[in-house]
Amino acid sequence: MRSKTVLNIIGKLLMMIGISMIFPLIWAFYYREKELIVFIISIIATFLSGFALSEIKSQGEGLRPIESLGVVSLGWAAFSAFGALPFFLSGTLRYLDAYFETMSGFTTTGATVIQNIDILPKSIIFWRAMTQWMGGMGIIVLAVAILPALSIGGMQLFNAESPGPKIDKLKPQVRDTAKILYGVYLIFTAAEIILLIIGGMGFFDASCYTFSTLATGGFSTKNLSVAYYNNPFIEGVITLFMYLSGANFMLHYAALRGKLDYFKNKEFLFYSTIIASSIIIMAVDLRYSVYNNIIDAIRYSSFQVVSIITTTGFVSSNYDVYPAFSRMILLILMFIGGCACSTGGGIKNIRILVLLKYFYREIYQFIHPNAILAIKVGEETISDDVIKGIMGFFVGYISIFVIATVLVTSYGIDLITSISSVATTLGNVGPGMGLVGPMYTFSFLPNFVKIVLTFCMWIGRLEIFSVMVLFMPDFWKE
Amino acid sequence: MRSKTVLNIIGKLLMMIGISMIFPLIWAFYYREKELIVFIISIIATFLSGFALSEIKSQGEGLRPIESLGVVSLGWAAFSAFGALPFFLSGTLRYLDAYFETMSGFTTTGATVIQNIDILPKSIIFWRAMTQWMGGMGIIVLAVAILPALSIGGMQLFNAESPGPKIDKLKPQVRDTAKILYGVYLIFTAAEIILLIIGGMGFFDASCYTFSTLATGGFSTKNLSVAYYNNPFIEGVITLFMYLSGANFMLHYAALRGKLDYFKNKEFLFYSTIIASSIIIMAVDLRYSVYNNIIDAIRYSSFQVVSIITTTGFVSSNYDVYPAFSRMILLILMFIGGCACSTGGGIKNIRILVLLKYFYREIYQFIHPNAILAIKVGEETISDDVIKGIMGFFVGYISIFVIATVLVTSYGIDLITSISSVATTLGNVGPGMGLVGPMYTFSFLPNFVKIVLTFCMWIGRLEIFSVMVLFMPDFWKE
Repeated sequence: MRSKTVLNIIGKLLMMIGISMIFPLIWAFYYREKELIVFIISIIATFLSGFALSEIKSQGEGLRPIESLGVVSLGWAAFSAFGALPFFLSGTLRYLDAYFETMSGFTTTGATVIQNIDILPKSIIFWRAMTQWMGGMGIIVLAVAILPALSIGGMQLFNAESPGPKIDKLKPQVRDTAKILYGVYLIFTAAEIILLIIGGMGFFDASCYTFSTLATGGFSTKNLSVAYYNNPFIEGVITLFMYLSGANFMLHYAALRGKLDYFKNKEFLFYSTIIASSIIIMAVDLRYSVYNNIIDAIRYSSFQVVSIITTTGFVSSNYDVYPAFSRMILLILMFIGGCACSTGGGIKNIRILVLLKYFYREIYQFIHPNAILAIKVGEETISDDVIKGIMGFFVGYISIFVIATVLVTSYGIDLITSISSVATTLGNVGPGMGLVGPMYTFSFLPNFVKIVLTFCMWIGRLEIFSVMVLFMPDFWKE
Repeated sequence: MRSKTVLNIIGKLLMMIGISMIFPLIWAFYYREKELIVFIISIIATFLSGFALSEIKSQGEGLRPIESLGVVSLGWAAFSAFGALPFFLSGTLRYLDAYFETMSGFTTTGATVIQNIDILPKSIIFWRAMTQWMGGMGIIVLAVAILPALSIGGMQLFNAESPGPKIDKLKPQVRDTAKILYGVYLIFTAAEIILLIIGGMGFFDASCYTFSTLATGGFSTKNLSVAYYNNPFIEGVITLFMYLSGANFMLHYAALRGKLDYFKNKEFLFYSTIIASSIIIMAVDLRYSVYNNIIDAIRYSSFQVVSIITTTGFVSSNYDVYPAFSRMILLILMFIGGCACSTGGGIKNIRILVLLKYFYREIYQFIHPNAILAIKVGEETISDDVIKGIMGFFVGYISIFVIATVLVTSYGIDLITSISSVATTLGNVGPGMGLVGPMYTFSFLPNFVKIVLTFCMWIGRLEIFSVMVLFMPDFWKE
C-alpha cells in the first residue's frame, strides 16, 4: 500500500467533514447555544488536519484496489476520530464514548452511549443525526462502486451480476452512478422531512429523524425514540422510508424514471417476503401475549420488524419484554439485514438467498449426482467467484460474531446481552437486548467492551474484508 | 431409491438390535427384575419385525449411494422406534419420551427425559447405556466407510485426503477397516471398564459409564452424573477416554500398532489446542468466581471442557452457575465437537480448521490478487469438492440451528434454553443451559419441542445431508 496516497485522500475527505460541521454550527447560532465555540474549534481542527494530510504528495497516479481498501477502512476510523470532537469538547461524553458514538453514527448503527438525549443541545443532536446521514451516503458509494470492483465478499454480484437494473445499463461511469444515487437519497430525504412535518414534527426533529431513517441509523432526538410520539402516521412514514432505505437504491432510481422493477428483483422479493412473514408471525405472538387487539399487534410488530431488518434500530415499543419467540425473530433479523446497494447492514438478503440456494443444491446433488447445477438468482447464474466471496464473508461474519461475543462475556456480561450487543453492532442495527435493550444505552459497559463493539460496528459496516486486510503485515508494505 | 433393498437391510440390522437386547435381559434375570418379561417381548417384537422386513426381496445387486443414505437415515429412525420398546413397555416413559430417549442413545447424544434415574431397574439403565455404545459403533462405520464414499459434507477429506494414517494404507477393504476400528473400540471399552473398577466402581456402573464415554454419549446411571462419585481418579479416567473417543480412531489403531502419529495429525493438534486453551481460560475464570483454589478450578474446567467438546455431556459440576464467559466457551465447544472418524458429534474440528483457513485465504487474496492459493491441512491440499462439501455442511448446520431454535421459542421457551437445547441436541452433546441445564432434564418440554429436538439429534448425528435428502421428492422415486 502506498500510504501517502491513502493519507492524501483521507485528508481531502476530512476537509469535507470539517466543512459539514457548519450545519450544526448554524443550529448552535440559531438556538444561541454555547456549543457555537465547540463547533468552531472542531471545524478548524478537522479542516486543518485534513488540509495537512492532503498536502502529502500522492505517489503515482490513481488508486490500486489495495489502496481503496486502505482509504475505506482507515478513513472510517479517522472520520470518527474527528467527528467525535463536538461530543468531547462540549463535555457531553469522554473521548472513548465520543468515539463510540461517532463510529455508531458514521457506520449508521445507532447504538448510543448518551443516557439522556432530551437535555442535549440541539446543535449536538443535529451533528449526531448528520453523522449517520453522511455515513449512509458513504456506504452507497462503497456498495455501488468500490466494494464490487474489489470483489469484496461476493459484492460484485450486487451490480454487474444481480438481476434487476444494472449499473452499466443505467450509466457507464461509476462517478455518474454515485451522483444518480445521491439524487435519489436527496429526493427521499426531502420527501420524508415533508411527510414528518405533516405528521406534526417540527423541522428540526423531522430532519434528524429523516437523517436516521435514510441512513438506517436509528439515533433519535428523544430518549423514548419513536415511541415518544405515539403517532401511527409518523410510525407509518418512518416504516415506509426504513423499508425503502433497506432496499437496493438502483431500484429506486429505476422507479423514479418510471420503471417499477421492484418485484422483478429476486432480492427485493426475498426481503419483502421475510418482512411480511415476520410481521404476521410476530403479530400473532404479540396478540396473545402483550397486546389485547390485533391492530396494536400489527402496528408494533410491523414497525419493529422493519426497523430491525433494515438495521435502523428505531424503537416504537420495548421489544425486550416480548416473548422469546418474537425476540428470537428480531435477533435473526439483525443478522439478515438489508439489501445490496442499500444503506442497511447485516449479512444482506442476497447473500442469505445465495447461501440457502447453495445448501439446497448440495442436497439436490446427492439425488442427481451427475447433474451439473448452477446456482441462479432469477435469470442470472451466480459465478463460482461470487459464491466463493459470499462463503468467505459468511464464515468471517460468524467467526467475528463468535470471537467478539466471547470477549464481551469475558467482562462478566450476561449471555443475552453479550450475544445481542455483538449481533446489533456487527449488523449496524443499534439497540440489543437485556442490558443493551431498547430502554437502555451502551454507556454502562466497561471500556474494553466498548472498544470491542466499536470494532464490530467498523468491521461490520465495511463488509468485514476491508478491515481484516489491515491485520495482514503485507498490507502495510509500500 | 429402491425401497425394498433399503427395507431388507434395515430388517437385518433390526434383527441384530433385537438380539442385542439379550444383554439387558441377562441383567434383568440376574437382579430378578420384573422387566425380564419386558425384554422378552421387546426382543420378539424387534426380531420378528426385522425378520419380516428382511424377507422383502432386494431389487438387484448391491447398494447405490442413494440407498446407503436411505439405510442410514431411515435406519436410525427405525432402530429408535424399536429400541424405545423397553422404556415404553416397562412403564418408565410414554412412547414419545421413550423415542426421544432412545434416539438420544443411538445418536450418542445423552439428553434425557428421565427425571429420576436412581430408581430405574438395572436392566433398563443397562439398555439405555448400551444404545449409546451401539450407536457409537454405527457412527464409526458411517464416518469411516459410508459418508466419505458419498462425499457427505466434505467427509471424503476425513480419510482419503486427511493427513495422518490413511485407510487405504492400513487395509484396502472398507469392511476390514470397520473391523479394525471395532477392535480398537473393544480394547478401549475393556481398558476403561477395568480402570473404573480400580477407581472404585462396581462392574455394572463401570460398564454403563464406559459405554457412555466411548460413544461420547453421556447417559449416566446416577441423577448427579459423574459428580455423584466426587472422585478425581474416576474423573481423570473418564476425561482421558472422552478425549480419546473424540479423536480420530484411525490414529488409535496406528498407535496400537506402535505408530504414535497423534501430533503429526493437524486435526488432532487443532482439537488438542482448543481443549488446552479452553481449559486454561476457563480455569482462570472459575478461580476468581466459583472456586477459591486453582486446583479445583482446573479439575472442573478440564472435565467440563473435554466432556462438552467431545460431545459426551457428562457433568462433574453444575456449569450453569459458572460466569457467562465460561458458559459461552462451553456453548461454542458444543458447535465445534469432536474429530473426524470419532464418535463425537458437532461440526467437527477438521471442518472448523478448513473454514478458518478458507477465511484467511480470502483475506490474503486481497493483498496478493494474482496468487493462486490452495488450502492445505498439513501437507495435503484440500480439493475444491471437499471445500464445497464443507461449506454446504456449515451453511446447513447453521440454518437448521436457526430454524429449530425459532421453533423451540415458539412454545414460549426462554432464549438461553432454546438456543442451548438446539445446540446440544444438534451437536449430540446432551445437557444444555437454563431449563435444560445440567441439573435438569428435557422431560418438562412440550411434545412439539421434544419432536423438534429429536429431529435435531437425528439430523446432527447423520451429518445433515443423510436426513435432508428425505425431504426431496425425487429421493422416493424408484
